[in-house]
Amino acid sequence: METSYIGKSIPRLDALDKVTGRAVYSVDVDLPGMLHGAVLRSPYPHARIVEIDPSGAWEIQGVRVVITGKDFPFTHGGMIKDQPFIAIDRVRFIGEAVAAVAAETEAAAQDAVARIRVRYEELPAVFDPKDAVAEGAPLLHEQQAEYRRGPNYQYVPGTNICTIRSFAKGDVQAGFAEADEVFEDEFYIHAVAHTPMETHAAAAQHSPVDGSYVVWSASDGPHRRNKELADALGIPINKVRILTTDAGGGFGGKGTIVAEAPAVALARFAGGRPVRVVFSREEELSASQTRHAAYLRLKTGVNRDGTLIARSADLLWDKGAYASKGPEVTYRGALTIFGPYRIAHLEVRTRLAYTNKQIAGAYRGFGTTQVTWACESQMDIIAHRLGIDPLELRLKNCLVENDRYINGQVMRGVGLTETLERASREIGWGTPKSPASGVLRRGRGIATMLKGTVTPTSSQCTINVNQDGSIILLTSAVEVGAGQKTVLAQIAAEAIGVDPSSIIVPNSDTLKSPFDYGTTSSRVTYHNGNAVRLAGEKVRRRILEIAGEILKTDPARLSLSCGRIFEEGVGERAGLKEVLSQKFVRGGMIWEEGFYTASGSPLLKADQGLQAMSSIFWMFATHAVEVEVDIETGVVKVLKIAAAHDVGRAINPMLCEQQIEGSVIMGLSNTLLEEFKMENGRVLNNTLADYKVATMMDLPEIVPIIVEARHPEGPFGAKGIGEPAAAPAAPAIANAVFDAIGVRIKDLPITPEKIRAALKSSGK
Amino acid sequence: METSYIGKSIPRLDALDKVTGRAVYSVDVDLPGMLHGAVLRSPYPHARIVEIDPSGAWEIQGVRVVITGKDFPFTHGGMIKDQPFIAIDRVRFIGEAVAAVAAETEAAAQDAVARIRVRYEELPAVFDPKDAVAEGAPLLHEQQAEYRRGPNYQYVPGTNICTIRSFAKGDVQAGFAEADEVFEDEFYIHAVAHTPMETHAAAAQHSPVDGSYVVWSASDGPHRRNKELADALGIPINKVRILTTDAGGGFGGKGTIVAEAPAVALARFAGGRPVRVVFSREEELSASQTRHAAYLRLKTGVNRDGTLIARSADLLWDKGAYASKGPEVTYRGALTIFGPYRIAHLEVRTRLAYTNKQIAGAYRGFGTTQVTWACESQMDIIAHRLGIDPLELRLKNCLVENDRYINGQVMRGVGLTETLERASREIGWGTPKSPASGVLRRGRGIATMLKGTVTPTSSQCTINVNQDGSIILLTSAVEVGAGQKTVLAQIAAEAIGVDPSSIIVPNSDTLKSPFDYGTTSSRVTYHNGNAVRLAGEKVRRRILEIAGEILKTDPARLSLSCGRIFEEGVGERAGLKEVLSQKFVRGGMIWEEGFYTASGSPLLKADQGLQAMSSIFWMFATHAVEVEVDIETGVVKVLKIAAAHDVGRAINPMLCEQQIEGSVIMGLSNTLLEEFKMENGRVLNNTLADYKVATMMDLPEIVPIIVEARHPEGPFGAKGIGEPAAAPAAPAIANAVFDAIGVRIKDLPITPEKIRAALKSSGK
Repeated sequence: METSYIGKSIPRLDALDKVTGRAVYSVDVDLPGMLHGAVLRSPYPHARIVEIDPSGAWEIQGVRVVITGKDFPFTHGGMIKDQPFIAIDRVRFIGEAVAAVAAETEAAAQDAVARIRVRYEELPAVFDPKDAVAEGAPLLHEQQAEYRRGPNYQYVPGTNICTIRSFAKGDVQAGFAEADEVFEDEFYIHAVAHTPMETHAAAAQHSPVDGSYVVWSASDGPHRRNKELADALGIPINKVRILTTDAGGGFGGKGTIVAEAPAVALARFAGGRPVRVVFSREEELSASQTRHAAYLRLKTGVNRDGTLIARSADLLWDKGAYASKGPEVTYRGALTIFGPYRIAHLEVRTRLAYTNKQIAGAYRGFGTTQVTWACESQMDIIAHRLGIDPLELRLKNCLVENDRYINGQVMRGVGLTETLERASREIGWGTPKSPASGVLRRGRGIATMLKGTVTPTSSQCTINVNQDGSIILLTSAVEVGAGQKTVLAQIAAEAIGVDPSSIIVPNSDTLKSPFDYGTTSSRVTYHNGNAVRLAGEKVRRRILEIAGEILKTDPARLSLSCGRIFEEGVGERAGLKEVLSQKFVRGGMIWEEGFYTASGSPLLKADQGLQAMSSIFWMFATHAVEVEVDIETGVVKVLKIAAAHDVGRAINPMLCEQQIEGSVIMGLSNTLLEEFKMENGRVLNNTLADYKVATMMDLPEIVPIIVEARHPEGPFGAKGIGEPAAAPAAPAIANAVFDAIGVRIKDLPITPEKIRAALKSSGK
Repeated sequence: METSYIGKSIPRLDALDKVTGRAVYSVDVDLPGMLHGAVLRSPYPHARIVEIDPSGAWEIQGVRVVITGKDFPFTHGGMIKDQPFIAIDRVRFIGEAVAAVAAETEAAAQDAVARIRVRYEELPAVFDPKDAVAEGAPLLHEQQAEYRRGPNYQYVPGTNICTIRSFAKGDVQAGFAEADEVFEDEFYIHAVAHTPMETHAAAAQHSPVDGSYVVWSASDGPHRRNKELADALGIPINKVRILTTDAGGGFGGKGTIVAEAPAVALARFAGGRPVRVVFSREEELSASQTRHAAYLRLKTGVNRDGTLIARSADLLWDKGAYASKGPEVTYRGALTIFGPYRIAHLEVRTRLAYTNKQIAGAYRGFGTTQVTWACESQMDIIAHRLGIDPLELRLKNCLVENDRYINGQVMRGVGLTETLERASREIGWGTPKSPASGVLRRGRGIATMLKGTVTPTSSQCTINVNQDGSIILLTSAVEVGAGQKTVLAQIAAEAIGVDPSSIIVPNSDTLKSPFDYGTTSSRVTYHNGNAVRLAGEKVRRRILEIAGEILKTDPARLSLSCGRIFEEGVGERAGLKEVLSQKFVRGGMIWEEGFYTASGSPLLKADQGLQAMSSIFWMFATHAVEVEVDIETGVVKVLKIAAAHDVGRAINPMLCEQQIEGSVIMGLSNTLLEEFKMENGRVLNNTLADYKVATMMDLPEIVPIIVEARHPEGPFGAKGIGEPAAAPAAPAIANAVFDAIGVRIKDLPITPEKIRAALKSSGK
């Protein structure tokens, strides 16, 4: 079908506001009478709070609110309510909020915070999840039993195990017995920071009259955030209004309550004045959230011909001090430890362990990035050990259209093979590499992956057409910088038959915007896109009905294209504005709702018991890289990354390419540069001078490749793209390093020191 | 049918915010970086602008914008686009905006405005509409032909006649010939101010990036205001966002662009900074809008038994300098000059004449207040002349249930007779008055009226039920202070089966709130109420469906009351929150839309040609008063007013009583105290010290009487109440004065001077 606006690289609707500095990010929120908040943070990784003397804070001019945890004794957490807004009688990581101040200026608030005296009694701390789950480890949450928690989040009483879950299919032991070879490896993936340009920030205002709160923040899921806050505070959801600001980067880091916590707590005591809390970069890097670090043990049985027979996995994740989204991140990650492959016998145990460190949360990939590191590294080990080309090994086992996933779900829209073929071809896979020269060695590596989306969830929108034909698309899908608004406007434009420039997409206001599950799990294009497509089709039908009435003809003979109404066999009849202004003489608008839920889709029919693993769509990606390793310095330089992504259908190819490029950079940065330098639970490198993120200088040639295996239920065939792009880079690079110098790095990041040490110990 | 929340006097939802000072009125809007605007106003009633030298304004520190009409050469006007945002080359009344300044402080803006030098060439002016329509009168709008105007607004080229319309039915000349007596009278009704507590104010912000505007104002019809602004500026409607603030009094005065005009014009040049313009009381009283003054000539043929036979009316209204809503106010007013009576032969001509005075606009009653003054004064004249009791004369001729209105429409829900009977009974009609004592004379008077509502119009709402059962009712019905939000919440609560306290009703945002025609014409309870009732019923059905699913029972056996779910024969089964939180595990909400339009209602079927006079409902009222006149001083003291109003059904009786009380006070104040003292087009009494409004000291005993002739299509039988309450006071008082002292005052206001003069000339 010919499309007018789908598949077109139109510029982003929000581009002009952003490049001209008109966008209002959460750090820019400025309100009449606004106070500025600052937070006193714990210097100890684990301690009892013996006494707090806030009197010094009141000596600073302009101080209006000084609070400690006892003043606002609520706990939050979307899955397990284990986290106080402000520490109450115990701190569990360096950087935890202990007290907070709101003052007329930020300087006064910072000065005041520094004058609060706290007496601590230090407690033994634990920093490594392996130590945390060992017998006799100091406990972080003795009172786990008291926490309100979701039904699926089982813990182990008397331990630091926050959640434990397992899953099995087939007979893994029989599988291992049957296999020709069994591979056992342990991999480690480290924590990294989201490092958005915009640090966490929120403003909050409390009404002393009705007890309601208004919160301004760049939350990626405003309708879940208001429920979380309402649940935490014990007030109705309609008393928490989230006004979504523009977002200066999400990557999962805006997926829960962070800066909102001190802002809301301070606002409660500010006599109706709003309070804004803006995290410094130091706070962002040591007191916000990180990616979950993990130990990933894989045991895989394989036949000599490369057929995967069985896999057993044991995953241990580093939670940091509080649950946040960890229970879901780690379980959903665990379920994809088997990769995009057909394996008959499977089992996985996943444990999430509390440690006295900064909280880990959702991070682009939602657990998939971690397991892909292990899965795809081991695939390379298997290929090399069996003497099979790594590409061939993957092609032999990989899922294809109409294969059944491990939950029995028939998979549709599977472009995996094409991503493998195109990425490898682009990198020159199978052709001769340039020979070693001096201390430089070249190698190529490949890694692939699959990721599902949280299922079932729902999205709703309304499309309002004014009497002059100008259009408002109302959605709570948050623009986190990936072009969500533009993609949805293109879908609306296509479905209705108008130019996307006639559509505006305001930011969400939970009091007024329709429900959405959130900009998470790469779900917006698919879910909100479907809702928008449905609403758009209703709008088009309604317009044609009205046009039929005004033009006195059968609507079935009419069509709408580029905002003009055409009649079959007659040609152009009228403009949209002309027709609507005649219809709505006394005012009025067309207002149609679109609702999409994955629930009940025939695509989700699955074998019994495994529905929790279903995903309404699956995304596939392959990265192929060429690296150059300096065997003297150990420096790995990535020369080229070809990143092939199956997006179902690229609504806006430019935006897809930008997503791929951005996340390839992120993956490369994570793999080679980023690392928290820690000492007894303290982040030593909490500035961007010390916490190294890839810059333009570090970038290779990046070739984004869009694969379009159209999804039968996606809007115009589209799936998602945001998350998977970050996952395959690390194993692809590690595999290329192995190809170049024959050493296998199993723990991230891949640093020159590790390369040199590995070369040395392997005697190369 | 038993109701839980309808007919209950629950306190207003907005009461706490308002009494605690938390409400944000347009004058309170405060925005980051906001500039303050001030307006230079014309000192001449009619002049050509020869030259403007704004350089002096720039000498004041903090001045950021200085503009004249040439900088922003747009014209506005919902019916006729005849009014510049800022005068371009001509001023037409004292107080018209000539230039404007925005500065960092209001003081700087005022100082700067005072330094702008303007050279005028004075033109001959005209102040009285009779003079304005006379041959050779100076013309205000020579270029009338160039104005964009609605199709029904015929003018007379080369004159000051802004619009002229007429209507006739039957054969008036034959009617007069047939009648036993013919009465001819001319009445005059003066202009008065709306006098809201809050003066006009607006803030506006312009985006230099996309050319859009955001406007904060207490507009009573945000969806018409954004269309008016978009039309005036030639931009799409979705580029004008109106954020409705709380309103400190409307009374029709917030029904068009007033303070918005300079705010928007200044914002255009403020580089993206918002600009707020707040009218001083002096500006409010001399440069906002007023009630239309009018000369009303009535010729009425009557039989000796009191039967009304024929009426011819010639109405001449004082427009002031620009059209505003005058074309509709005066035509809709003119159509009710025949009163709530059966008259076979009718004709009316109505002319609206430009004069060099402050603009007249919509004012509570929308023309009905003016015509009721004439109609009910003449009814009293007729009754006295024929020797028929004034109550009897009205009862004999008045419309009753199922009568046809003059347009042929069968009238339903007609409680007129009951209002006449109950108001007169309350005042002791027909019983002996206390005898004259000294210089004091007592008299009783009665006046009745009908008013329709603008028809057809539409209202839409959505009701969103969160997963915890808390509810958001989205509507663009503006709370102008009459309790609109509370009434709609009560209707929603009743329709759904929940407590009104679980419902919040946010202010409208035209980008996000559903369409509404506006809080005008007493239409909200009926139109929005119907939309809310429909949405509420959908919500209830949806809740019961979900409850059936969760509780595993047939929804038909379930009912919802006070937020609890009951099963037939079983009793209480669950709370709303319990059921919804099980349904929406992955988030979600119930979101139902309600839409109501009067268009197509069977109640509107009418004889051919007269549909424009149809009203989806009719309101009726009778006021009966007792006065005491001091024949020495001429002072009229109202002792008691009984005000009986047919509201169809009182959703909230307390709010109905407050509406009646408030408008009785307004009517009394208009009749006896309020008057613009003018001198060559200048308002001499432009402060509240000089412009007298009734205070508590001036008030009589007021007895509000609610009559409930249920309307067949109204929500729970309700109609409206806001406007008609202000209309009958003036003729009722004048009729009582006649009863007391035998002199007839035909021109308002009724001042001691006029009483004394009339007594003198009548020799009493």
